[in-house]
Amino acid sequence: MKALEDRIREEGKILPGPVLKVSSFLNHQMDADFIMQLGAAIAEQYKGFRVTKILTIESSGIAIAVAAGAALHVPVLFAKKHLTSNVSGDLYQTVVHSYTHGTDYTVVVEREYLKADDKVLIVDDFLANGKAIEGLLDLIRQAGAEAAGAGIAIEKGFQEGGQKLRESGLPVYSLAIVDRMDENGIVFRGENSL
Amino acid sequence: MKALEDRIREEGKILPGPVLKVSSFLNHQMDADFIMQLGAAIAEQYKGFRVTKILTIESSGIAIAVAAGAALHVPVLFAKKHLTSNVSGDLYQTVVHSYTHGTDYTVVVEREYLKADDKVLIVDDFLANGKAIEGLLDLIRQAGAEAAGAGIAIEKGFQEGGQKLRESGLPVYSLAIVDRMDENGIVFRGENSL
Repeated sequence: MKALEDRIREEGKILPGPVLKVSSFLNHQMDADFIMQLGAAIAEQYKGFRVTKILTIESSGIAIAVAAGAALHVPVLFAKKHLTSNVSGDLYQTVVHSYTHGTDYTVVVEREYLKADDKVLIVDDFLANGKAIEGLLDLIRQAGAEAAGAGIAIEKGFQEGGQKLRESGLPVYSLAIVDRMDENGIVFRGENSL
Repeated sequence: MKALEDRIREEGKILPGPVLKVSSFLNHQMDADFIMQLGAAIAEQYKGFRVTKILTIESSGIAIAVAAGAALHVPVLFAKKHLTSNVSGDLYQTVVHSYTHGTDYTVVVEREYLKADDKVLIVDDFLANGKAIEGLLDLIRQAGAEAAGAGIAIEKGFQEGGQKLRESGLPVYSLAIVDRMDENGIVFRGENSL
C-alpha cells in the first residue's frame, strides 16, 4: 500500500534492534482517518474468506483491528496480556515470547467469544518473528476454530515470521513489507497481495 | 444513548465490586460497527469544541477513541501503561491509582505528541472514580494544553468521578450513566447531553 510506505518513509524512525518506530501515526499517536483506511485495505483482501471474527492482541493492534472489523462488519476480539478482574470464566491462554521486551507473557481470551464455528482473521500492527501471531493461532486452535489468515500493517520482511507463517499455509497479507532498513533508508518489497 | 443502554441491559453482567462486565461488545470482544456508532455519538457532542486531539489510555479505551477520532478527523493519542522499548524521548508521565486492581501504575505519553496549542478531548470506555481521567488531565496540564472535555461510553453514576469532574468545570458527557445496579437490575439516569 503506497500510502503506508510513503508515511513510513516520511515519519518512521529506525532505532537499535532494529526497531521501526511509527508512533506518530500507527501505535502511540494514531491517525484515525488513516487507520480506518488501513483496516479497510486489510478487509478488502479477506472479503471472500467468510471471516466471522477478528482476533488481535493488546494494545497496538486494537485500532487497526477495529477498523478492519468495521469494514467486514464482524466482531473484534483482543487477547489480553494481563489477567484483570474483568476477565472471568473459562479462558484459552497461551504464552508468547517477546523479543522486544525479552520476556514471556501470557495472553488470554474468554472461551465464550471464540467458538469452533468461527473463521478467524488475525490482525496486528507489526509482524516480525511471528511469535505473537503464533500465540493467537494457538488460541484459535484451542477453540477448534479455523484461521482465515493474518492481515498486518507492517511486516519486517528481513525477519523470519512472515515466511514461516506463509510456508505453513496461512494466508498472510501485509500492507507494507520492509525488506531492509538501515542508515541508508528503508527498502520495501513493493505491492503484494494474497 | 438508548442503543447503548439496551445493549448493557441485554448483555451486561454485574460482578462483585460492583463491576459491570460488558466484554461481549465493548472491551474484550468489540462490536466494531457499534463502537463506530458510539465514537460518532461522542464526537457529535464535541463537534463545536475545536478539538485538535483525542487522548485515551490503553487498552480498552483505544477502540472507541479511534472511532471518535475518525468522526472528528483528529489524531488519537493513547497513554501507555508500560514503558516499552518503543517509547523513547521525552515523556510526560503521571501515576494513576487503580481501585480495580489495587495498585498504582505509571502512564506516559511522548512529549512530541501533546503540545501547548492542543485542545484535547479525553475518551474512555468507563468512568467510575475518575482516577484514570484525572491522570490524563495531569498529562494535558503538563503539556500546557487545554482539556476540551471527557467523552465516556459508560459512567458509573453512583461513584464520585463524574460529579467531581463536572464540578471542576470539565465538560463530561457519558453515553450511558448507570445510577444503580444490583440484583434488581440496572437503572440508568436517562438521556443526557452537555
